[in-house]
Amino acid sequence: MPGYTANKQDHLKRLRRIEGQTRGLQKMIEEDKYCIDVLTQISAATKALESVALSLLEEHMAGCMVEAARAGGAEADEKVREAADAIARLVRS
Amino acid sequence: MPGYTANKQDHLKRLRRIEGQTRGLQKMIEEDKYCIDVLTQISAATKALESVALSLLEEHMAGCMVEAARAGGAEADEKVREAADAIARLVRS
Amino acid sequence: MPGYTANKQDHLKRLRRIEGQTRGLQKMIEEDKYCIDVLTQISAATKALESVALSLLEEHMAGCMVEAARAGGAEADEKVREAADAIARLVRS
Amino acid sequence: MPGYTANKQDHLKRLRRIEGQTRGLQKMIEEDKYCIDVLTQISAATKALESVALSLLEEHMAGCMVEAARAGGAEADEKVREAADAIARLVRS
Repeated sequence: MPGYTANKQDHLKRLRRIEGQTRGLQKMIEEDKYCIDVLTQISAATKALESVALSLLEEHMAGCMVEAARAGGAEADEKVREAADAIARLVRS
Repeated sequence: MPGYTANKQDHLKRLRRIEGQTRGLQKMIEEDKYCIDVLTQISAATKALESVALSLLEEHMAGCMVEAARAGGAEADEKVREAADAIARLVRS
Repeated sequence: MPGYTANKQDHLKRLRRIEGQTRGLQKMIEEDKYCIDVLTQISAATKALESVALSLLEEHMAGCMVEAARAGGAEADEKVREAADAIARLVRS
Repeated sequence: MPGYTANKQDHLKRLRRIEGQTRGLQKMIEEDKYCIDVLTQISAATKALESVALSLLEEHMAGCMVEAARAGGAEADEKVREAADAIARLVRS
């Protein structure tokens, strides 16, 4: 089971809301809404996505990474490397 | 007409793809996919949203802002202020 | 004169403070300070740099870009393109 | 000893270079260099700072966090919480 299992319903709810935001953005564009208002909504959706990512990451560290650290060996190193790469992608996106 | 009118269909296409990505994310969570793979997809969706924002912003500057600059006066100042705030929200999100 | 001339002293003051922060970071590393405390200071310096960038950008739009828009022609288009590229670099860094 | 001890000299070298970049930025402002060129250098310094942060974070996870995970108990939970907060600050800066 992935580390986020306990909060699965919460993540799904937040992602459904973000899906709704991306549909709202299409409606704004179709109705020629003012550029700055569209940008404000894009920033909101981006922040919401990042917030889901940060929750998943914390749950991943508390679950999979802690387990791998206890198991030790190459598995622990690999988990750290993989998480570091995922964090770099988040920071740079 | 907003500055993005000429590229409306392109923006709509990209936003529909992002909507699909957010649905794909829900499916990944429902199927207990590995946390790091979910994070990779979130980074991709975030980058795609930012990319739409950067296009809209450029079109806004080339359209509304250039027009306001030519009209001059308080309107020009207001457009600059408003764009600066939108950029700050993007940079900080 | 660049668009930021009026606020030159303010920018210099903020950059001197950021220079001080980068020296403080070296001292923390030399003294083996706790990683998380070093990271907190890096986030502060990054935010301070971004804040200088956002001010410069607003002054650039209010100065050079508005002027170029009034002059019109290819110069105006080029200024928009150039600013859009600078914004993209900020958003992605 | 913090997790970054093995790479201390490398971090110091990178931070000295970033300190040099912040001094170079002051010189650019003093000499009224073009706004967009100043912004390009700010983006470079920001990316360099983020890159130091990502290295420190990886070393922190491989060191302190793995150790705490093995020790177990409340200490492990606290380390995860603390790292998650540091990551959130990086992502949002």
